[in-house]
Amino acid sequence: MAAPVRVFAPASASNLGPGFDVLGLALNRPGDVVEAEPSDRPGVQIAEVTGDSGLLSTDPHQNVAGVAAASVLAHLAATGRAASDAGIRLRVHKRMPLASGLGSSAASSVAGAVAVNELFGRPLTRRELLPHALAGERVASGSTHADNAAPSLLGGFVLISDYDPLEVIDLPVPAALRVAVVHPHCRVETAKARALLRGQGFSIEQAVANLGHVGALVAALYRGDLALLGRSIEDRLVEPLRKALIPGYCQVKEAARHAGAIGCSISGSGPSLFAFADSDIGATRVAAAMRDAFREAAGLDADSYVGPVNLQGARPVE
Amino acid sequence: MAAPVRVFAPASASNLGPGFDVLGLALNRPGDVVEAEPSDRPGVQIAEVTGDSGLLSTDPHQNVAGVAAASVLAHLAATGRAASDAGIRLRVHKRMPLASGLGSSAASSVAGAVAVNELFGRPLTRRELLPHALAGERVASGSTHADNAAPSLLGGFVLISDYDPLEVIDLPVPAALRVAVVHPHCRVETAKARALLRGQGFSIEQAVANLGHVGALVAALYRGDLALLGRSIEDRLVEPLRKALIPGYCQVKEAARHAGAIGCSISGSGPSLFAFADSDIGATRVAAAMRDAFREAAGLDADSYVGPVNLQGARPVE
Repeated sequence: MAAPVRVFAPASASNLGPGFDVLGLALNRPGDVVEAEPSDRPGVQIAEVTGDSGLLSTDPHQNVAGVAAASVLAHLAATGRAASDAGIRLRVHKRMPLASGLGSSAASSVAGAVAVNELFGRPLTRRELLPHALAGERVASGSTHADNAAPSLLGGFVLISDYDPLEVIDLPVPAALRVAVVHPHCRVETAKARALLRGQGFSIEQAVANLGHVGALVAALYRGDLALLGRSIEDRLVEPLRKALIPGYCQVKEAARHAGAIGCSISGSGPSLFAFADSDIGATRVAAAMRDAFREAAGLDADSYVGPVNLQGARPVE
Repeated sequence: MAAPVRVFAPASASNLGPGFDVLGLALNRPGDVVEAEPSDRPGVQIAEVTGDSGLLSTDPHQNVAGVAAASVLAHLAATGRAASDAGIRLRVHKRMPLASGLGSSAASSVAGAVAVNELFGRPLTRRELLPHALAGERVASGSTHADNAAPSLLGGFVLISDYDPLEVIDLPVPAALRVAVVHPHCRVETAKARALLRGQGFSIEQAVANLGHVGALVAALYRGDLALLGRSIEDRLVEPLRKALIPGYCQVKEAARHAGAIGCSISGSGPSLFAFADSDIGATRVAAAMRDAFREAAGLDADSYVGPVNLQGARPVE
């Protein structure tokens, strides 16, 4: 173990319309930072959590960054790459909103896992870190969905093609693609949003619609066809159930379309929405229209982030 | 209207594992042939149907080729490209088994639609003919699924990305890809196989599995990655319900895998199965193993067809 490390892991937009639990992309910002340094006390401790308004636990078994870090540390110890009594102290800096639909827990989990790996000289590959990040994610959401953690960790636009065994496929990112995400100041708990879907019986027609759209979305990325990408952002499975959790949803989506968005839907389990555009100017205009619509339709202030897909994923920072 | 025409429309394999109603590919054989010639009697008549063991109607309103042909003729008349009293006489030659899961009704529908278009000097494009072919298909199956008619008409490996409005996307076909289809001598009525799915409530987990696999299948075709293609041929939605309609299903699928198939599942609504392979020799071996397994496990003789994906689709023949 060497000098202390700081790792940034980015926010992510998942589901992306038709691809519940299977599609996600990394954003350039916001994101979380986790610092890790050696400690004399065996195991993982969390010295502090900042930026969370006191909402997150500093118990390493309850904090997602702690759980992910401990998973990596245990793996390194079990494979002889860390001493069995190795100790790590984490500082977790939340720099993005909780329960926002932007993969906040995934970003912390990823940053925790990557930070430990960096501290030990990077013994594991990025892809090898994914199961450890998911161990953290599971604490937050009560489920193992990888469509936030995988893009936050690996960067890019990814498809989780299988969960058993886990398989992640990098999809091409069209050069002109820009993403706008708009986060209204309200919260949707992921576990609650997921509970809405459990026990639901979906019709074959709903499934067929989403199957066609996921196929089209993947084809659109390979073709670099943003118009097709836009047409593919339709979700018959999840959006009909979850949109009620987001005040002003229909009006904001309509505002995005009216402002020229090529597709708009819920980011993760919301309340953030994402929209695609084909230029920075276009994405900025779409984001502004969506913020305005949240205010007018639901009386909610909103933050927005605009930019290309983050191709790099989590990374050490100064 | 000119000289009589003969049109061949190929069989097709649809669903292809995860892609219920959205994925299909054209085969080189078998297929149906429809002959069309001018008639003095207005509208569409069917002079004869051969190869159907007397099972199909010669009433043009009941026979899928007649319905598709009439749909094209009505469209041409409505748009001034055919006389309002134009008459066509068809001869329908079934050269593939009925209720086989190989798109028999789609092939007849497509051949009927294309034959009328040829007779009038090809006023419509292939894609413009699709809705007319589907009008025929609807008579047979009671539903409008395009994943047999579209590949039979257009050739290749296609995605029906949307039904409202209908959108068909051509997917790339890896050069080495070979398809084996094996048709056991029993029947599954499409309408009955579809009824199994109606009123079913599918879980979100089932949907997620198929969403991931359809995405992977499309990515695999763009990448030319046959191993990934093979891993994507898993169906959690439909196969669990429909496999009971096919005697010996599990044993035949296992035999295909054992013989080296890269993916195997039900073709359309069955009872035919398809398997992918990466060479003619491999596909031939897989087909033989599947035929043997149908005989051993279910006492059923079976036919098989092996070859590349048919890139041409329906075509005039001598």
